[in-house]
Amino acid sequence: MAKGSLPVSPLAPAAFPRLGAIAGVRLATAAAGVRYKGRTDVLLAAFDAGTTVAGVLTRSKTRSAPVDWCRLGLDGGKGARGLLVNSGNANAFTGRAGAAAAEATAKAAAKVLGVQPKTLFLASTGVIGEVLPAERVVAALDGLNAGLSPDGWEAAARAIMTTDTFAKGASATAEIDGTTVTINGIAKGSGMIAPDMATMLCFVATDAKIPAPVLQALLKPAAERSFNSITVDGDTSTSDTLLVFATGAIRHAPVREARDPRLKAFAQALEAVLTDLALQVVRDGEGATKLISIEVTGATSTAAARRIGLAIANSPLVKTAIAGGDANWGRVVMAVGKSGERADRDSIAIWMGGLPVAADGAVHPAYDEAAATAHVRGTDISIRVDVGVGKARARVWTCDLTHGYIDINADYRS
Amino acid sequence: MAKGSLPVSPLAPAAFPRLGAIAGVRLATAAAGVRYKGRTDVLLAAFDAGTTVAGVLTRSKTRSAPVDWCRLGLDGGKGARGLLVNSGNANAFTGRAGAAAAEATAKAAAKVLGVQPKTLFLASTGVIGEVLPAERVVAALDGLNAGLSPDGWEAAARAIMTTDTFAKGASATAEIDGTTVTINGIAKGSGMIAPDMATMLCFVATDAKIPAPVLQALLKPAAERSFNSITVDGDTSTSDTLLVFATGAIRHAPVREARDPRLKAFAQALEAVLTDLALQVVRDGEGATKLISIEVTGATSTAAARRIGLAIANSPLVKTAIAGGDANWGRVVMAVGKSGERADRDSIAIWMGGLPVAADGAVHPAYDEAAATAHVRGTDISIRVDVGVGKARARVWTCDLTHGYIDINADYRS
Repeated sequence: MAKGSLPVSPLAPAAFPRLGAIAGVRLATAAAGVRYKGRTDVLLAAFDAGTTVAGVLTRSKTRSAPVDWCRLGLDGGKGARGLLVNSGNANAFTGRAGAAAAEATAKAAAKVLGVQPKTLFLASTGVIGEVLPAERVVAALDGLNAGLSPDGWEAAARAIMTTDTFAKGASATAEIDGTTVTINGIAKGSGMIAPDMATMLCFVATDAKIPAPVLQALLKPAAERSFNSITVDGDTSTSDTLLVFATGAIRHAPVREARDPRLKAFAQALEAVLTDLALQVVRDGEGATKLISIEVTGATSTAAARRIGLAIANSPLVKTAIAGGDANWGRVVMAVGKSGERADRDSIAIWMGGLPVAADGAVHPAYDEAAATAHVRGTDISIRVDVGVGKARARVWTCDLTHGYIDINADYRS
Repeated sequence: MAKGSLPVSPLAPAAFPRLGAIAGVRLATAAAGVRYKGRTDVLLAAFDAGTTVAGVLTRSKTRSAPVDWCRLGLDGGKGARGLLVNSGNANAFTGRAGAAAAEATAKAAAKVLGVQPKTLFLASTGVIGEVLPAERVVAALDGLNAGLSPDGWEAAARAIMTTDTFAKGASATAEIDGTTVTINGIAKGSGMIAPDMATMLCFVATDAKIPAPVLQALLKPAAERSFNSITVDGDTSTSDTLLVFATGAIRHAPVREARDPRLKAFAQALEAVLTDLALQVVRDGEGATKLISIEVTGATSTAAARRIGLAIANSPLVKTAIAGGDANWGRVVMAVGKSGERADRDSIAIWMGGLPVAADGAVHPAYDEAAATAHVRGTDISIRVDVGVGKARARVWTCDLTHGYIDINADYRS
C-alpha cells in the first residue's frame, strides 16, 4: 500500500519533537526503491569508535534474518559502528536466500563505513516472505555514506515508516554525576499495521558513556515497562527490534554497574523516551481513535499483573465496547477471568476514569453509569483493576478496535 | 439488544435438524421476561431417576454463580434430575446475591420436580454484573412443570438463545453392543456474541446407560477436540457450560469403563454431535462470513499443536486478511512465531485449500497466488501448517473478522 493512503491518526502529536544532534552519531537517508516509489526507504547511521550497544529483539519463533544478524552482533560484544535499516521488505521467512541478502547488505555497509561487519546492525520492515532485494540497498550505500550528517533525526524517522501515519521521535536529557547527557529515539510501526507489512522498530542513541552490559541491564526493565507493555492487536511481529547505542562522546564519571545511583536519572530518562515512543506507536495503532491505559494492582507478581493487563488490552470485546463509547465493565471482568492468572473473583474492584465501578466482586453501590459512559466517550481512557490477591502492579496501554482496523487490514489491498 | 435485530448468519444451516425424543427426558420452555420481551427465555428439563451426568465448565477465574452450582452437582455424584436454563442474564460477577439467586431458583425447580436440589443443574446466559431476578424464573416454574413433554428440542434451543441468529441442534445414533442409542444436543452462543451478553452453553442428552465416571471420561477428549478447539474472538465466557445427561432408558449391555470397545461407536457419535454444535457456534460467530479450518501438524504434542492452531485462529491479522479475500500467508507465519510453542522456522510448510504455499521456511516454488486467492475468496477456508518439530497434530476452527463484528460489539447498543 502506498504511504499516505491512510489519514493521519486523530491521536497523532501536533508535530515531530525537536531532536538535536547526538555527538558520535551521523545519519543519512535515501530512496532506494526497495518497494515504495517516491519516498525514502533506507536509513544509514554511523557511530564513532567506542559506541556500545544493547538490544531487545522479538521472541518470535519465526524471527526475520536481520533479527538473527543483530543477535550475532549483540552477542559478539564488539560494540556498534553502524546501523542499516530499510522499509518495504521485512526479509522474514526467506530462508537461506534471506540470510544471504542480510549478510550482503551488512558487509557492503561495513565496507563503505570502513568498519567490521559484526559491528553493523540491521533492521528490515515490510512484507513477509519475499527476499530483500539487496542490490538496491547496496547501490544506495555510497550516496548514503557521502550524506552522513549529525542532523536529520526526523528524516531518519520518516525513512523507516511503512504505513505509519506519522513519524515518531522522542528526546530527553539526564545528568550523570553532574554532566548532562542526551537520549534521542525514533520508532516506527504499530504491531503489524498494514496488509502485509510487519514490525515495530525502535532505535535510541545517547552520547553517554555506558558499558554494554550496563546498558543492557538498564534497557531490559525499561523495555518491559514500555514496548513490552503495549499492544494494538496482540499480533507479534517477526522483526521487532529495539536497539540502544551509547557513543560515549560526552565525558562524565565512569559508571560500571546498572545499580550505580549516579545512573538513576539516566535510567529514568531512557524509560521516559521508550515510553513516549511506545505510546506514539499505540496512538498510531490501526484505526485507533482512543488511547487506553490499563493499570492492574493487587496481583501476585509484576509479570502476572502485566499478563492480566494484556488480557484486558487484547480483548476484542473490551476494545470494541470502548470504541462504541460503552462502559461495558463486565467485559473487563471476563478478560481478567480468562487471563489464566490468579485473581479473587469476589474481591475484584474496578475503576474507569477514576470512578468506582465494581468492588468486592460485584457492581459498586455508587456506580454512576452516566459518568462512566462520559469518560469512555473521550479519547484518553483509563481503567484500573484490583484483582485482590497480592501487592504487585503493572500498567499497559492499547487502543480501541474500530472499523478502521478492518478497513486497513481487510478492505485495502497492497 | 432485542433478538431478531441481527440478520441470520450467511453460514447458517438451511433448517434446524430433526431431533426426536430421548427416553427419560422431558422439556418445557416459557417466557419469564428475565430481560427479553415477547420470546421464551427459560428452559426446564426433567430427567428420569438414574440419569447420570458429566460436564465441562469454564476455567474462567470470574466464573458465574450457576457454574459454581453445577460444579457442586457434578462433584456430588448424585446424578441429574433436572436442568434449569435462562437467557438474558448470566448471573456472573454478582457476589453473594448472585449465589443466593442461583440457589433459590435451583431449590424452587427441584421442589416442583420433587427431586433433590443437588441434582438440579443450572445455566444462565446474558448480561454480566446484574443479579438474576430469581422471582421471575420461580414464578414460571409451575407452568413449566405442567408443560413438560418428550418433544420440543427446537423450542428448547430457541429459549436459550441470546443474540444467536439461528437455533443450534444436532443428533446422532450409535450402537452399543448391538443396541441403538440416540444422542441429542443443543447449544447457544458464539464466544461472547453481543454487547453485554455472554456465554456458550451446550446440553446433550442420550438414552444410553453410562456410569457418570465413564461419561466424564468420554466427554473430556471429545470436548477438547470440539468446543475447546473453536474460537471466535479469543474471549472466554464467564459461563461456558457443557453438560451431558445419560438417562439409561435404553437397555443395553452394561459398560463400566471408557475404553470398553463396545463404547467406540458411542464415543464417536458423541464427538460428532459436539463437533457439529461447535461448528454451528462458529458459523454464528459475530459478523462471520467464512468458516476457517486450521490443521496443525508436526508439533511436539497435541496441546502444542492446538495452541499453535489457536494462535493462528485468534490472530486479528489472519482473520481480517481472510475476510478481505487475501491469501496473506505471511500472517500465518507470524502467528506460528508468536504462539510460544516450538516450531522450526526453516522447516515450516503451509497449504491453503490443499495448495502448497510455503515449504522449508520460505515460499513454495510452485506457489500460485491466484489459486490461493480464489480459495480464500470462498466461504469454506482450510489452512494447514506443518511446524516441523514432531508428529502431533490438532485441528481448530474459527471465523473471519469483519465489519459485522465491530457493528455488533461497538455500534449497536444494548
